[in-house]
Amino acid sequence: MTDQDFEAALAARIDGKTKPQGALGRIEALAAQVARVQQTLTPRLQSCCLTIFAADHGIARHGVSAYPSEVTRQMVLNFAAGGAAANVFCKVNDVALQVVNSGVIGGRFLVPEVRNLPIAEGTACSLEGPAMTRAQRDAALAAGRDIGQEGAWDAVAFGEMGIGNTSAATLIAHALTGSELDALIGRGTGLDDAGLATKRRVLGQAAARRPGLTDPDEALAEFGGFEIAMIAGAMLGAAEARRIILVDGFIATAAALIAVRMEPMCRDAMIFAHRSAEPGHQAILDALQAEPLLDLGLRLGEGTGAVLVWPMVKSAVAMLNDMASFDSAGVSGRV
Amino acid sequence: MTDQDFEAALAARIDGKTKPQGALGRIEALAAQVARVQQTLTPRLQSCCLTIFAADHGIARHGVSAYPSEVTRQMVLNFAAGGAAANVFCKVNDVALQVVNSGVIGGRFLVPEVRNLPIAEGTACSLEGPAMTRAQRDAALAAGRDIGQEGAWDAVAFGEMGIGNTSAATLIAHALTGSELDALIGRGTGLDDAGLATKRRVLGQAAARRPGLTDPDEALAEFGGFEIAMIAGAMLGAAEARRIILVDGFIATAAALIAVRMEPMCRDAMIFAHRSAEPGHQAILDALQAEPLLDLGLRLGEGTGAVLVWPMVKSAVAMLNDMASFDSAGVSGRV
Repeated sequence: MTDQDFEAALAARIDGKTKPQGALGRIEALAAQVARVQQTLTPRLQSCCLTIFAADHGIARHGVSAYPSEVTRQMVLNFAAGGAAANVFCKVNDVALQVVNSGVIGGRFLVPEVRNLPIAEGTACSLEGPAMTRAQRDAALAAGRDIGQEGAWDAVAFGEMGIGNTSAATLIAHALTGSELDALIGRGTGLDDAGLATKRRVLGQAAARRPGLTDPDEALAEFGGFEIAMIAGAMLGAAEARRIILVDGFIATAAALIAVRMEPMCRDAMIFAHRSAEPGHQAILDALQAEPLLDLGLRLGEGTGAVLVWPMVKSAVAMLNDMASFDSAGVSGRV
Repeated sequence: MTDQDFEAALAARIDGKTKPQGALGRIEALAAQVARVQQTLTPRLQSCCLTIFAADHGIARHGVSAYPSEVTRQMVLNFAAGGAAANVFCKVNDVALQVVNSGVIGGRFLVPEVRNLPIAEGTACSLEGPAMTRAQRDAALAAGRDIGQEGAWDAVAFGEMGIGNTSAATLIAHALTGSELDALIGRGTGLDDAGLATKRRVLGQAAARRPGLTDPDEALAEFGGFEIAMIAGAMLGAAEARRIILVDGFIATAAALIAVRMEPMCRDAMIFAHRSAEPGHQAILDALQAEPLLDLGLRLGEGTGAVLVWPMVKSAVAMLNDMASFDSAGVSGRV
């Protein structure tokens, strides 16, 4: 079947369902996207896994977050114990969850719920030099790519935990979108005005080390972090495996932009879950020509927004597979 | 506990969860709303039932819909057979479904999946006089109220099917919101330009019969329909039973406005699911000071939008009940 024939058959299948044409709005577009990724008119969308990558950031030492770096490790243990928002949302929405130590300060986790794949105990500080070496970056991308391809999930979501990672994502977004740095900087987990001023100063200095940088590999190494690199790699791997990728908020979308700049085709597999309250998110979404499904003022990360759209995407595919057609149901068409 | 103490305890409980304060945005507000309706810090939200009310409209004879009235009956049979969008969405999202014949042309349904509670075989045409008698209206409200109260559902959603019912809802919205009629009129199931011009002319004539009408009981009787009356009644009953009400799109929100005008307290139990593509929806939402959760261009009705938000509302309540607190998880607070 040619692409043109496939598109015509897909449109006919959706328009033949017992509903006015286009009446399910973006749900119809979602169904069509999944059909295209799986290259079938009867896509399968049963299982979804959220992988949360956690890592620390050297730049966090400079007062760019309302929380101390130790919270990264504590939150990983909270994920392992089932107490975080991501755990709770995954349970309600039937999404599997795994947690990866991509480079958390304090050494390996000794609980079975955490996969230890650390690149190092946190990145270097990007104020003084690259957050990671090229070898570290490539190792993180490769580890992510493996995770994106493993298992038999129909859909995947990627979350993150890393005190300081809105700073890393902001610097990457500045490099890759060309937006003014100040317009991209937000309060992250909840900086007050003084903290926000500090963040502006620190990120300004870090960005000034590499003016005009636009290469995604370089931006990733310069500004970090390990969890962002693993998410970008995992998205590349998942797209190769023709999986649907549910993209969460600010950090995950920055990783998505890196992945798309490295391999534009992986954009096709991405469903953008929500518009983050973090102001820089919109610039990254614009660069990806993405219109997210939800706009609920979320700014937690962990993949929480991505998990919330999973039932909606499943509903879209069920519409395509299980709804009756005007013909099969004996329903009259338009007057 | 006083209201003030309850609010303080609720805020402390939400803010004590392992997330930055406010980081779950409107999900936090949803959790708080359910807690208030159930008057407990540990609300229960396990079960949800969608009731679809179907009825015909006398005004449909005047070319105000792209589909003939017989489609109402055909779609009820489609619901009964499990083939409509509402069926498919309910299955994916774990929502029970029942279908009520509120007044469909063609007599009783002889399939066990349909509850026959018809007021009459369609309303009278509101161009010539009231769509229903006061006795019919009161019977429809009472039948709806019983349905809103029956069973043991934690949450309820109400959908509708009725060729011509965007016309009825538009006339009601015009009366109750005071918005210009023309600004409220949309293409419904998909009128072309000529059909839209007809709809404008017909609704203009119908509205001109009762200029200045603002009473909800009167507007309901004047413009119909039986399904809208039953939804309004069901919302009143569900609110009395302290159930969460998931409000669907244009028609259901018009019914919600009637219910709120009759009994303002029932607004507290309502969660507005989505912003319909039907242009008049916004005026009704404004009158209810409601900001819907989704904006996906849906315009199908049947309760489909309401069903799509059910997992989100469940997730919000699970956050309140099942997430760890900073204390319990040993996670550090702000710097």
